This record gives sequence, structure tokens and C-alpha cells, in this order.
Amino acid sequence: MDPFMGEAISEARLGVENRDGGPFGAVIVCNGAIVGRGHNKVIGTNDPTAHAEINAIREACKNLGKFDLSDCSLYTTCEPCPMCYAAIHWARITDVYYGCDRYDAAHIGFDDKILYDILPRQDDLASVKLTQLERDSCLEVFKLYEMDEKRTLY
Amino acid sequence: MDPFMGEAISEARLGVENRDGGPFGAVIVCNGAIVGRGHNKVIGTNDPTAHAEINAIREACKNLGKFDLSDCSLYTTCEPCPMCYAAIHWARITDVYYGCDRYDAAHIGFDDKILYDILPRQDDLASVKLTQLERDSCLEVFKLYEMDEKRTLY
Repeated sequence: MDPFMGEAISEARLGVENRDGGPFGAVIVCNGAIVGRGHNKVIGTNDPTAHAEINAIREACKNLGKFDLSDCSLYTTCEPCPMCYAAIHWARITDVYYGCDRYDAAHIGFDDKILYDILPRQDDLASVKLTQLERDSCLEVFKLYEMDEKRTLY
Repeated sequence: MDPFMGEAISEARLGVENRDGGPFGAVIVCNGAIVGRGHNKVIGTNDPTAHAEINAIREACKNLGKFDLSDCSLYTTCEPCPMCYAAIHWARITDVYYGCDRYDAAHIGFDDKILYDILPRQDDLASVKLTQLERDSCLEVFKLYEMDEKRTLY
């Protein structure tokens, strides 16, 4: 298991346990250390922008005292949605590792297809390098979420 | 002057005066009342996601205690960037009024072209209705920002 993706998965598990929102977690890594972490808190904080990546970016910037994270990498348990992808761009992160992809997310009820249709990503133009990692382990948290009958669907 | 765009412009002016970031402001309106407001605070808070629209959405959700703003309208002094556009989508806002456009923003140094190339918006698929309003008044705040020689460029 990649240790940083493992930490992102721990965040995602925490989110499922707390019923904070979708089963998604992320960490920001700088010089081999985690400088920010977060999980989806859309329901827990009534904030539609509180996706895992946004929360991790905000925490890393707060901890480092800067808004430029170009020397950092982002590990996220699921492919970033267009909002998070654009936030990654504004944070100047160019190195992103993700576990599950948009189709895995759709299988558990997070169908972002409409948004992907409206804002289709032109990967050949992108400066962000996206690498898939540890999908199976990330899928386990999706299953945990699906099995929780008391989760709030949104 | 449209009163809600006037309030968005006041927010943008406040941001320029405080040197919080770019000269952009936004308000969220529900049943004829402002329920959230914000301006760009990328520099002031070291948060690359702290665009005017995101801040206004977060404040409105906090004030209303819900993450679904489908009964609200958003007024912003500049066309939302792809991050904010996606955030508007997640907040389920379908009624957006903007002042300046992406080309006006590029003229004062906020060239989002790379991001628009990576995430081009397919307006024919979008459920968000975008209406331009009070461009000239919004441009005045851009000029104010340009004239501030002590502003931090980013």
C-alpha cells in the first residue's frame, strides 16, 4: 500500500464513520510529509464546496502560510471532479494521484456526468499529471459507505 | 443600478481596499434578500479556493443551514471561473448574473485562458442561466484595482 494513499483512505473512512458526506479523502504531501488532509464534509458542514481535495488544499495552505502549492503532491481516493480539478490548478499543484475513477463513483450514486459533460477535461492541454493508484483499496471504502443504511443520500 | 449587483460591487471594492486579492465580489439572493456575500480573499487568507463566488456560497449555506441553494440567485462582478462554475452547479444554483467577462478579467492580469482551454464550458448542456448585467460599473472596480500600485500581483 502506498503510505500517502493509505492516509487518504483513512480520511475517507473517517468521513464514512462520521457520516460527513461522500466516502472521499485526500492528503497533500510536501517534501515527504503530509501538510494537509481532508475528507468530504458536504453534509457535516452544509457546504457544497467541502469536497476532500478542497478541504485538504485549504488546510495545507493554512499550515504552510501560502496559496502556492506547486512543490506539493495531492493524493485523493477518487478522481477529482471539475471543481476540485480547477482548485488544484489554482493551487498550482501539478502532481496528483487518485484511486477510484469517476465511473466507480457513479456506481455508488455520485454521478458527476452532467458536470463532466458541461466541463469536459482536455487532458492533452493540462499541466496536471494524473496517476491512478491503489484503486482496490479505495473501492473498499466505497463499499463501506454503500453498506451504511443510515447514510444521507445527496 | 441593479441593487444586488450594486452590493456585489461593494464587496469587490472592499476587497480592493483591503488588498485581499482580485477585484471580485459576489452576493447570494434568496426571496429578495441577501443571504450570503463574499469577495476574493486568495491573498488575504492564503487560500487559492477563496474566490468571491465560493466565499458567498459558503456564507449563504452557513446562514441558511443547508447545502442546496436551488432557490437562490448569485450576483457576481465577473464571469465565474470553471472552479466557481462547478461550485455553483454543486450548490444547485441555476440563476447567475455577472458583470465583467473573462476577457475583461484578462485585461487586468487575471488570464484564466489555460483553465478555460482545459475545462471549456458547453453552455448548451448547462442548466445554469448566465445573464450579463452592469458591466460598466463592474469595470470601474477593475480600474481601481489597476491603479493600486501596492497591490500584490498573483
